[in-house]
Amino acid sequence: LQFYMHDQTSGSNPTTAFVTTPQINNDTYFGVVAVFDDLLTRSPSIQSARVGRMRGMFTFDSLSALSLLQSATVEIFGRAGSISLHGQNPFLDPQRELAVIGGSGEFRCARGYATVST
Amino acid sequence: LQFYMHDQTSGSNPTTAFVTTPQINNDTYFGVVAVFDDLLTRSPSIQSARVGRMRGMFTFDSLSALSLLQSATVEIFGRAGSISLHGQNPFLDPQRELAVIGGSGEFRCARGYATVST
Amino acid sequence: LQFYMHDQTSGSNPTTAFVTTPQINNDTYFGVVAVFDDLLTRSPSIQSARVGRMRGMFTFDSLSALSLLQSATVEIFGRAGSISLHGQNPFLDPQRELAVIGGSGEFRCARGYATVST
Repeated sequence: LQFYMHDQTSGSNPTTAFVTTPQINNDTYFGVVAVFDDLLTRSPSIQSARVGRMRGMFTFDSLSALSLLQSATVEIFGRAGSISLHGQNPFLDPQRELAVIGGSGEFRCARGYATVST
Repeated sequence: LQFYMHDQTSGSNPTTAFVTTPQINNDTYFGVVAVFDDLLTRSPSIQSARVGRMRGMFTFDSLSALSLLQSATVEIFGRAGSISLHGQNPFLDPQRELAVIGGSGEFRCARGYATVST
Repeated sequence: LQFYMHDQTSGSNPTTAFVTTPQINNDTYFGVVAVFDDLLTRSPSIQSARVGRMRGMFTFDSLSALSLLQSATVEIFGRAGSISLHGQNPFLDPQRELAVIGGSGEFRCARGYATVST
Protein backbone atom coordinates (compact mmCIF):
# COMPACT_ATOMS: atom_id res chain seq x y z
CA LEU A 1 0.00 0.00 0.00
CA GLN A 2 1.40 3.37 -0.97
CA PHE A 3 -0.35 6.70 -1.04
CA TYR A 4 0.07 10.43 -0.46
CA MET A 5 -1.46 12.50 2.30
CA HIS A 6 -2.73 16.05 1.88
CA ASP A 7 -2.68 18.10 5.04
CA GLN A 8 -4.03 21.65 5.11
CA THR A 9 -3.27 23.48 8.33
CA SER A 10 -4.65 26.78 7.08
CA GLY A 11 -6.64 28.29 4.24
CA SER A 12 -10.32 27.96 3.50
CA ASN A 13 -10.51 24.17 3.88
CA PRO A 14 -8.23 23.20 6.75
CA THR A 15 -7.94 19.48 7.49
CA THR A 16 -6.18 19.94 10.82
CA ALA A 17 -7.56 21.66 13.92
CA PHE A 18 -5.24 22.68 16.75
CA VAL A 19 -7.23 22.15 19.93
CA THR A 20 -4.77 23.19 22.64
CA THR A 21 -2.12 25.88 22.88
CA PRO A 22 1.62 25.62 23.62
CA GLN A 23 2.18 25.46 27.36
CA ILE A 24 5.92 25.95 27.66
CA ASN A 25 7.63 28.70 25.78
CA ASN A 26 9.94 26.97 23.37
CA ASP A 27 10.27 26.34 19.66
CA THR A 28 8.83 22.87 19.55
CA TYR A 29 5.13 23.63 20.18
CA PHE A 30 5.28 21.29 23.19
CA GLY A 31 1.79 20.62 24.45
CA VAL A 32 -0.09 21.35 21.25
CA VAL A 33 -2.73 18.73 20.44
CA ALA A 34 -4.32 18.61 17.00
CA VAL A 35 -7.04 16.61 15.27
CA PHE A 36 -6.74 15.83 11.55
CA ASP A 37 -8.72 14.27 8.70
CA ASP A 38 -6.51 14.09 5.62
CA LEU A 39 -7.22 12.82 2.12
CA LEU A 40 -4.95 10.05 0.78
CA THR A 41 -4.34 9.93 -2.96
CA ARG A 42 -2.61 7.54 -5.33
CA SER A 43 0.09 10.00 -6.43
CA PRO A 44 1.43 13.28 -5.02
CA SER A 45 -1.09 15.40 -6.95
CA ILE A 46 -4.23 16.20 -4.98
CA GLN A 47 -6.05 15.68 -8.31
CA SER A 48 -4.98 12.05 -8.50
CA ALA A 49 -7.19 9.10 -7.53
CA ARG A 50 -8.61 9.29 -4.04
CA VAL A 51 -7.52 6.23 -2.08
CA GLY A 52 -8.69 6.85 1.46
CA ARG A 53 -8.39 9.04 4.50
CA MET A 54 -6.07 9.16 7.50
CA ARG A 55 -7.73 10.55 10.60
CA GLY A 56 -6.85 10.99 14.22
CA MET A 57 -4.87 13.03 16.66
CA PHE A 58 -1.31 14.21 17.01
CA THR A 59 0.58 15.86 19.85
CA PHE A 60 3.78 17.86 19.81
CA ASP A 61 5.48 15.93 22.62
CA SER A 62 9.14 16.87 22.43
CA LEU A 63 10.91 19.59 24.42
CA SER A 64 13.93 19.53 22.12
CA ALA A 65 12.81 18.72 18.58
CA LEU A 66 9.87 19.02 16.23
CA SER A 67 8.18 15.67 16.69
CA LEU A 68 4.64 14.37 16.92
CA LEU A 69 3.04 11.49 18.71
CA GLN A 70 0.42 10.25 16.26
CA SER A 71 -2.61 8.12 17.11
CA ALA A 72 -4.66 7.58 14.00
CA THR A 73 -6.58 5.29 11.69
CA VAL A 74 -6.36 4.80 7.93
CA GLU A 75 -9.50 4.05 5.94
CA ILE A 76 -9.20 2.73 2.36
CA PHE A 77 -12.19 3.58 0.16
CA GLY A 78 -14.15 0.48 -0.81
CA ARG A 79 -12.84 -1.61 2.05
CA ALA A 80 -14.57 -2.10 5.39
CA GLY A 81 -12.85 -1.12 8.61
CA SER A 82 -9.61 0.70 9.28
CA ILE A 83 -5.97 0.28 10.27
CA SER A 84 -4.80 1.66 13.63
CA LEU A 85 -1.44 3.48 13.73
CA HIS A 86 0.60 4.77 16.66
CA GLY A 87 4.06 6.23 17.02
CA GLN A 88 6.52 9.02 17.01
CA ASN A 89 6.73 11.12 13.86
CA PRO A 90 9.79 13.42 13.81
CA PHE A 91 8.38 15.05 10.72
CA LEU A 92 11.53 16.86 9.62
CA ASP A 93 13.31 13.54 9.13
CA PRO A 94 13.14 12.35 5.52
CA GLN A 95 11.61 9.02 6.50
CA ARG A 96 9.78 7.81 9.61
CA GLU A 97 7.78 4.80 10.68
CA LEU A 98 4.52 4.40 12.54
CA ALA A 99 3.59 1.13 14.20
CA VAL A 100 0.53 -0.71 12.92
CA ILE A 101 -1.09 -1.63 16.23
CA GLY A 102 -4.27 -3.33 15.02
CA GLY A 103 -7.24 -3.00 12.77
CA SER A 104 -10.93 -3.59 12.28
CA GLY A 105 -13.16 -5.07 9.57
CA GLU A 106 -11.02 -6.33 6.69
CA PHE A 107 -7.94 -5.20 8.62
CA ARG A 108 -8.61 -7.21 11.78
CA CYS A 109 -5.45 -8.03 13.69
CA ALA A 110 -3.22 -6.06 11.30
CA ARG A 111 0.38 -5.85 12.51
CA GLY A 112 3.58 -4.32 11.22
CA TYR A 113 4.68 -0.82 10.43
CA ALA A 114 4.01 2.02 8.02
CA THR A 115 6.75 4.13 6.45
CA VAL A 116 6.12 7.87 6.16
CA SER A 117 8.07 10.41 4.14
CA THR A 118 7.39 14.07 3.47
CA LEU B 1 -17.08 -11.31 26.82
CA GLN B 2 -20.23 -9.32 26.30
CA PHE B 3 -21.44 -6.33 28.24
CA TYR B 4 -23.31 -3.03 27.99
CA MET B 5 -21.87 0.44 28.44
CA HIS B 6 -23.67 3.32 30.10
CA ASP B 7 -22.56 6.73 28.96
CA GLN B 8 -23.98 9.91 30.49
CA THR B 9 -22.97 13.05 28.67
CA SER B 10 -25.18 15.30 30.76
CA GLY B 11 -27.28 15.30 33.91
CA SER B 12 -26.17 15.23 37.50
CA ASN B 13 -23.69 12.35 37.12
CA PRO B 14 -21.97 12.75 33.77
CA THR B 15 -19.46 10.08 32.83
CA THR B 16 -18.02 11.99 29.88
CA ALA B 17 -16.21 15.32 30.00
CA PHE B 18 -15.66 17.33 26.82
CA VAL B 19 -12.27 18.96 27.22
CA THR B 20 -11.87 20.90 23.98
CA THR B 21 -14.29 22.80 21.76
CA PRO B 22 -15.10 22.38 18.05
CA GLN B 23 -12.52 24.20 15.96
CA ILE B 24 -14.07 24.16 12.51
CA ASN B 25 -17.66 25.12 12.01
CA ASN B 26 -19.34 21.98 10.79
CA ASP B 27 -21.81 19.39 11.96
CA THR B 28 -19.36 16.71 12.99
CA TYR B 29 -17.87 18.28 16.13
CA PHE B 30 -14.43 17.98 14.49
CA GLY B 31 -11.73 18.72 17.05
CA VAL B 32 -13.72 17.88 20.15
CA VAL B 33 -11.77 15.71 22.60
CA ALA B 34 -13.55 13.99 25.47
CA VAL B 35 -12.59 11.84 28.45
CA PHE B 36 -14.95 9.12 29.65
CA ASP B 37 -15.34 6.60 32.48
CA ASP B 38 -18.36 4.39 31.77
CA LEU B 39 -19.88 1.55 33.74
CA LEU B 40 -20.20 -1.82 31.97
CA THR B 41 -23.08 -4.08 32.97
CA ARG B 42 -24.14 -7.63 32.15
CA SER B 43 -27.39 -6.66 30.43
CA PRO B 44 -28.77 -3.42 28.97
CA SER B 45 -30.34 -2.32 32.26
CA ILE B 46 -28.11 -0.09 34.37
CA GLN B 47 -29.50 -2.02 37.34
CA SER B 48 -28.01 -5.29 36.09
CA ALA B 49 -24.78 -6.82 37.38
CA ARG B 50 -21.79 -4.51 37.21
CA VAL B 51 -19.09 -6.12 35.10
CA GLY B 52 -16.41 -3.47 34.76
CA ARG B 53 -15.56 -0.05 33.42
CA MET B 54 -14.39 1.30 30.07
CA ARG B 55 -12.28 4.42 30.43
CA GLY B 56 -10.25 6.62 28.16
CA MET B 57 -10.42 9.30 25.55
CA PHE B 58 -12.26 9.89 22.31
CA THR B 59 -11.90 12.49 19.59
CA PHE B 60 -14.33 13.58 16.92
CA ASP B 61 -11.90 13.25 14.01
CA SER B 62 -14.03 13.34 10.87
CA LEU B 63 -14.82 16.36 8.73
CA SER B 64 -17.65 14.55 6.95
CA ALA B 65 -19.33 12.12 9.38
CA LEU B 66 -20.01 11.57 13.05
CA SER B 67 -17.11 9.35 14.03
CA LEU B 68 -14.81 8.99 17.00
CA LEU B 69 -11.24 7.87 17.40
CA GLN B 70 -11.27 5.95 20.67
CA SER B 71 -8.25 5.16 22.83
CA ALA B 72 -9.37 3.34 25.93
CA THR B 73 -8.97 0.51 28.40
CA VAL B 74 -11.50 -1.98 29.72
CA GLU B 75 -11.26 -3.17 33.30
CA ILE B 76 -13.22 -6.26 34.40
CA PHE B 77 -14.10 -6.29 38.11
CA GLY B 78 -12.29 -9.05 39.96
CA ARG B 79 -9.57 -9.40 37.36
CA ALA B 80 -6.17 -7.68 37.48
CA GLY B 81 -5.08 -5.40 34.68
CA SER B 82 -6.92 -4.07 31.67
CA ILE B 83 -7.42 -4.47 27.93
CA SER B 84 -6.24 -1.69 25.60
CA LEU B 85 -8.54 -0.69 22.72
CA HIS B 86 -7.97 1.64 19.77
CA GLY B 87 -9.90 2.46 16.66
CA GLN B 88 -12.49 4.33 14.73
CA ASN B 89 -16.02 4.32 16.08
CA PRO B 90 -18.57 5.66 13.55
CA PHE B 91 -21.16 5.53 16.28
CA LEU B 92 -24.24 5.91 14.09
CA ASP B 93 -23.44 2.62 12.35
CA PRO B 94 -25.29 -0.30 13.88
CA GLN B 95 -22.10 -2.24 14.53
CA ARG B 96 -18.45 -1.21 14.77
CA GLU B 97 -15.17 -2.78 15.80
CA LEU B 98 -12.30 -1.57 17.93
CA ALA B 99 -8.89 -3.19 17.73
CA VAL B 100 -7.56 -4.89 20.86
CA ILE B 101 -3.99 -3.56 20.84
CA GLY B 102 -2.63 -5.11 24.03
CA GLY B 103 -3.25 -5.59 27.69
CA SER B 104 -1.81 -5.71 31.17
CA GLY B 105 -2.05 -8.06 34.16
CA GLU B 106 -4.27 -11.01 33.31
CA PHE B 107 -4.75 -9.53 29.83
CA ARG B 108 -1.05 -9.35 28.90
CA CYS B 109 -0.48 -9.49 25.16
CA ALA B 110 -4.20 -9.54 24.37
CA ARG B 111 -4.89 -9.31 20.63
CA GLY B 112 -7.96 -9.28 18.44
CA TYR B 113 -10.95 -7.03 18.15
CA ALA B 114 -14.02 -5.91 20.05
CA THR B 115 -17.45 -5.48 18.46
CA VAL B 116 -19.50 -2.47 19.52
CA SER B 117 -23.18 -1.82 18.85
CA THR B 118 -25.45 0.92 20.12
CA LEU C 1 15.53 -3.08 29.79
CA GLN C 2 15.29 -1.22 33.07
CA PHE C 3 15.48 2.48 33.65
CA TYR C 4 14.19 5.35 35.78
CA MET C 5 11.97 8.19 34.65
CA HIS C 6 12.28 11.78 35.87
CA ASP C 7 9.08 13.76 35.69
CA GLN C 8 8.98 17.44 36.66
CA THR C 9 5.49 18.85 36.84
CA SER C 10 6.62 22.20 38.20
CA GLY C 11 9.74 24.26 38.80
CA SER C 12 11.93 26.00 36.26
CA ASN C 13 12.27 23.04 33.88
CA PRO C 14 8.93 21.25 33.77
CA THR C 15 8.76 18.13 31.63
CA THR C 16 4.97 17.85 31.76
CA ALA C 17 2.44 20.35 30.42
CA PHE C 18 -1.20 20.17 31.45
CA VAL C 19 -3.19 21.18 28.38
CA THR C 20 -6.78 20.93 29.59
CA THR C 21 -8.48 21.66 32.89
CA PRO C 22 -10.61 19.41 35.13
CA GLN C 23 -14.19 19.35 33.87
CA ILE C 24 -16.03 17.67 36.70
CA ASN C 25 -15.50 18.76 40.25
CA ASN C 26 -13.94 15.80 41.97
CA ASP C 27 -10.63 14.74 43.44
CA THR C 28 -9.36 12.68 40.55
CA TYR C 29 -8.57 15.46 38.03
CA PHE C 30 -10.97 13.75 35.59
CA GLY C 31 -10.62 15.31 32.15
CA VAL C 32 -7.09 16.64 32.55
CA VAL C 33 -4.90 15.89 29.54
CA ALA C 34 -1.13 16.34 29.78
CA VAL C 35 1.85 16.05 27.44
CA PHE C 36 5.21 14.87 28.81
CA ASP C 37 8.83 14.41 27.70
CA ASP C 38 10.76 12.70 30.49
CA LEU C 39 14.40 11.70 30.76
CA LEU C 40 15.14 8.03 31.45
CA THR C 41 18.29 7.18 33.40
CA ARG C 42 20.13 3.99 34.33
CA SER C 43 19.63 4.37 38.09
CA PRO C 44 17.28 6.44 40.27
CA SER C 45 19.69 9.41 40.43
CA ILE C 46 19.05 12.02 37.76
CA GLN C 47 22.85 12.30 37.57
CA SER C 48 23.20 8.71 36.41
CA ALA C 49 23.70 7.64 32.80
CA ARG C 50 21.08 8.95 30.41
CA VAL C 51 19.39 6.05 28.68
CA GLY C 52 16.57 7.58 26.69
CA ARG C 53 13.33 9.51 26.83
CA MET C 54 9.69 8.61 27.31
CA ARG C 55 7.34 11.00 25.58
CA GLY C 56 3.64 11.22 24.93
CA MET C 57 0.32 12.03 26.45
CA PHE C 58 -1.62 11.03 29.53
CA THR C 59 -5.20 11.62 30.61
CA PHE C 60 -6.77 11.45 34.05
CA ASP C 61 -9.66 9.20 33.03
CA SER C 62 -11.12 7.89 36.27
CA LEU C 63 -14.06 9.34 38.19
CA SER C 64 -13.18 7.33 41.31
CA ALA C 65 -9.40 6.94 41.55
CA LEU C 66 -6.16 8.61 40.57
CA SER C 67 -5.36 6.86 37.32
CA LEU C 68 -3.94 7.81 33.96
CA LEU C 69 -4.45 6.53 30.46
CA GLN C 70 -0.99 6.74 28.92
CA SER C 71 -0.20 6.78 25.21
CA ALA C 72 3.52 7.18 24.74
CA THR C 73 6.73 6.13 23.06
CA VAL C 74 10.12 5.24 24.52
CA GLU C 75 13.30 6.18 22.68
CA ILE C 76 16.61 4.57 23.66
CA PHE C 77 19.66 6.72 22.92
CA GLY C 78 21.84 5.20 20.21
CA ARG C 79 19.06 3.05 18.79
CA ALA C 80 16.82 3.97 15.88
CA GLY C 81 13.07 4.12 16.31
CA SER C 82 10.88 3.86 19.36
CA ILE C 83 8.60 1.56 21.35
CA SER C 84 4.86 2.37 21.54
CA LEU C 85 3.15 1.98 24.91
CA HIS C 86 -0.52 2.18 25.88
CA GLY C 87 -2.47 1.46 29.02
CA GLN C 88 -3.89 2.37 32.34
CA ASN C 89 -1.48 3.66 34.97
CA PRO C 90 -3.05 3.79 38.46
CA PHE C 91 0.04 5.62 39.64
CA LEU C 92 -0.53 5.22 43.38
CA ASP C 93 -0.24 1.43 43.04
CA PRO C 94 3.26 0.18 43.78
CA GLN C 95 3.53 -1.58 40.43
CA ARG C 96 1.65 -1.20 37.13
CA GLU C 97 1.99 -2.44 33.58
CA LEU C 98 1.67 -0.76 30.24
CA ALA C 99 1.08 -2.74 27.07
CA VAL C 100 3.77 -2.65 24.38
CA ILE C 101 1.58 -2.16 21.32
CA GLY C 102 4.22 -1.88 18.59
CA GLY C 103 7.39 -0.17 17.57
CA SER C 104 9.40 1.40 14.80
CA GLY C 105 12.97 1.16 13.52
CA GLU C 106 14.93 -1.37 15.58
CA PHE C 107 11.77 -1.99 17.61
CA ARG C 108 9.52 -2.95 14.69
CA CYS C 109 6.67 -5.21 15.73
CA ALA C 110 7.60 -5.07 19.42
CA ARG C 111 5.03 -6.82 21.62
CA GLY C 112 4.65 -7.50 25.31
CA TYR C 113 4.38 -5.32 28.36
CA ALA C 114 6.36 -2.87 30.46
CA THR C 115 6.32 -2.84 34.25
CA VAL C 116 6.22 0.55 35.95
CA SER C 117 6.85 1.31 39.63
CA THR C 118 7.14 4.65 41.42
